[in-house]
Amino acid sequence: MAEAIPLITLLTDFGLHDHYVGVMKGVIYNIHPQARVVDICHEVRPQDILQAAFLLKASYSYFPKRTLHVVIVDPEVGTVRRPILVSTESYYFIAPDNGVLSYIYQTEPVGEVRELTASHYFLSRISQTFHGRDIFAPVAAWLSRGVAPSSLGDLITDYKRLNIPLPTLLKEDILKGRILYIDRFGNLVSNITRQDFTAHLEKSPNKRFIIRIGDRNLTRLCQSYAEGNEKELIALFGSSDHLEFSLNKGNAAKTLGIHVGAEVLVKIA
Amino acid sequence: MAEAIPLITLLTDFGLHDHYVGVMKGVIYNIHPQARVVDICHEVRPQDILQAAFLLKASYSYFPKRTLHVVIVDPEVGTVRRPILVSTESYYFIAPDNGVLSYIYQTEPVGEVRELTASHYFLSRISQTFHGRDIFAPVAAWLSRGVAPSSLGDLITDYKRLNIPLPTLLKEDILKGRILYIDRFGNLVSNITRQDFTAHLEKSPNKRFIIRIGDRNLTRLCQSYAEGNEKELIALFGSSDHLEFSLNKGNAAKTLGIHVGAEVLVKIA
Amino acid sequence: MAEAIPLITLLTDFGLHDHYVGVMKGVIYNIHPQARVVDICHEVRPQDILQAAFLLKASYSYFPKRTLHVVIVDPEVGTVRRPILVSTESYYFIAPDNGVLSYIYQTEPVGEVRELTASHYFLSRISQTFHGRDIFAPVAAWLSRGVAPSSLGDLITDYKRLNIPLPTLLKEDILKGRILYIDRFGNLVSNITRQDFTAHLEKSPNKRFIIRIGDRNLTRLCQSYAEGNEKELIALFGSSDHLEFSLNKGNAAKTLGIHVGAEVLVKIA
Repeated sequence: MAEAIPLITLLTDFGLHDHYVGVMKGVIYNIHPQARVVDICHEVRPQDILQAAFLLKASYSYFPKRTLHVVIVDPEVGTVRRPILVSTESYYFIAPDNGVLSYIYQTEPVGEVRELTASHYFLSRISQTFHGRDIFAPVAAWLSRGVAPSSLGDLITDYKRLNIPLPTLLKEDILKGRILYIDRFGNLVSNITRQDFTAHLEKSPNKRFIIRIGDRNLTRLCQSYAEGNEKELIALFGSSDHLEFSLNKGNAAKTLGIHVGAEVLVKIA
Repeated sequence: MAEAIPLITLLTDFGLHDHYVGVMKGVIYNIHPQARVVDICHEVRPQDILQAAFLLKASYSYFPKRTLHVVIVDPEVGTVRRPILVSTESYYFIAPDNGVLSYIYQTEPVGEVRELTASHYFLSRISQTFHGRDIFAPVAAWLSRGVAPSSLGDLITDYKRLNIPLPTLLKEDILKGRILYIDRFGNLVSNITRQDFTAHLEKSPNKRFIIRIGDRNLTRLCQSYAEGNEKELIALFGSSDHLEFSLNKGNAAKTLGIHVGAEVLVKIA
Repeated sequence: MAEAIPLITLLTDFGLHDHYVGVMKGVIYNIHPQARVVDICHEVRPQDILQAAFLLKASYSYFPKRTLHVVIVDPEVGTVRRPILVSTESYYFIAPDNGVLSYIYQTEPVGEVRELTASHYFLSRISQTFHGRDIFAPVAAWLSRGVAPSSLGDLITDYKRLNIPLPTLLKEDILKGRILYIDRFGNLVSNITRQDFTAHLEKSPNKRFIIRIGDRNLTRLCQSYAEGNEKELIALFGSSDHLEFSLNKGNAAKTLGIHVGAEVLVKIA
């Protein structure tokens, strides 16, 4: 039996207001009529590389092995920044080399990284403004048709890694994190993972803590959004296993006036 | 010839701003690579169960028989509310048991309702915040692969029915309804169906009526949106066969300042 | 080997806020379970026929030959305006006959235009408010199943062409265009194509020019968005090969307060 055709996913800041995503799909199906394309999200804040990196981290591993993840947040399109293909044991990632894959470099055993240079796999005419259409989509389509990664360009090792903002110890007993992402419901997702939190709490004999966000202090963790009283701010580990803040039947971000980057402190009590 | 693989539809309040819908699709394709997923809508107002119930009513019957409709508006995720599977003669519905299927219980001959308890068909790790990913998507995928409903959990009869707001007689000659839904164009969809309206008008020898909405009185029904003069408010039966109000080349909701829940009166003249 | 099933694309002003697009897909799959549907864009400004015409022009040719493009911006739905099928050498276009295909008539060698009248290929009950569901989707599905265009209705020649606003010469040395489209990033796309611009510049011995938009004067063309300094307004040919204005790391439309229809002047210097 023939091996299944790998899925192609798209994660971009192109939005759905325009035709850009549709055109990329047209290019893919034109090269590979049997391709299957799945949208992860196109509403990344324009040019926000870190946000795309986080959404990719929270998503990629739920897809079948061998899926080709195409990630395009590309403020430097048309300049010297390189288009790359990253192969890990389980997935492929196609993206501009601007650090948008930084979480992947941390969490997946990276097999190889190639610069995409085999321009006969690009569209014949390359704009300097829409490489999603002209380079990334066609390469994904050819790869899903079975073209070998080694045909697409040479190995590189100097690919760009961003400094992902990780939680740090402000003092021995205070872990400082930041809000990384705010979702549709106004839930505030921090960069403090369950692992970070648990390790920090090891220091406390009685496992008590105070979490400070905005002008609020929280002293317990909930399990589910509905656990808080109506309009009560709660802390919990969300679906991506990051420490998250939520307002039951409300919008935490709007109510607290909190934006991405806001400080979160976890103090041992 | 093998029976066709049933479609899976998704109707949620997850929005497209985040990765949630994409991740659900990843989970589905991971379990069932040949699955076919179709979005009905993801922009249900956050946690608005009634709105989702209405959109489902207006949509489900246009899909092929045996389609699996997954409906997730789930403010009580992670609490005791049950995940359920409803089988009717023609369709399957997978949803939290919070009344979001109430219209279906009214309009479709319900075969059976099961509580989803067979956790070996869920993801191996279940969060308390994202059952769309951890329970509903995997169950839909397994069902589309041919797993029997009876393997997924036991029959229940005490599933939740919401009181769908139906039109009522204010007086013998006045039918009172409410605005149920406002669409992208600002069209105001009421809960008065063509059937309700026609039955009410039976009382009038000359079939004359006055419809009152906001501060406007309307005395005729149009057939199409373009029938009104520019910016004239008109009444007509919309695509879901509910009494609807529209402003030709305008946005009725914004112009009249009318929200969901607003009163609509139909008086025999 | 059987010929591949043609893709069906959807380009509408239905938005994703409602169930309309999902329902169209349900209708298509119900008639043709093997159909493949791709969204080009659904966020056309409500009832803006010209905008849809432009997005179609910028998209259609990237899809495989024989794709069926369904384009619905239809303020006159339910009136005498006709539903039509346009066959060109490479594509099919299904749309209301309101001029939304005007660019296609200019750029593609049109084979034939038919009025869709074979109502046995429509849904059995036709609303006067949602022909996307009741006429256009079913016709696309039947066509993708192999029904011959000649079965769908008779040839017509008096189909509607809009006056697409083209750039004009204000004086011998001044080309006047207009902003045609503003994308998610706030990039301002004019109706001046690379061809228009190049032809106009032929008049200048030294190829120097001044472009005026809003209160800004620009004297050079960039190649890529990132070429400008931060927040500097630049001019370049965008992905659709139209003259476009962009603010590096900013939103040109918001910053300059410029809307669709704004004047663009190219003066030979």
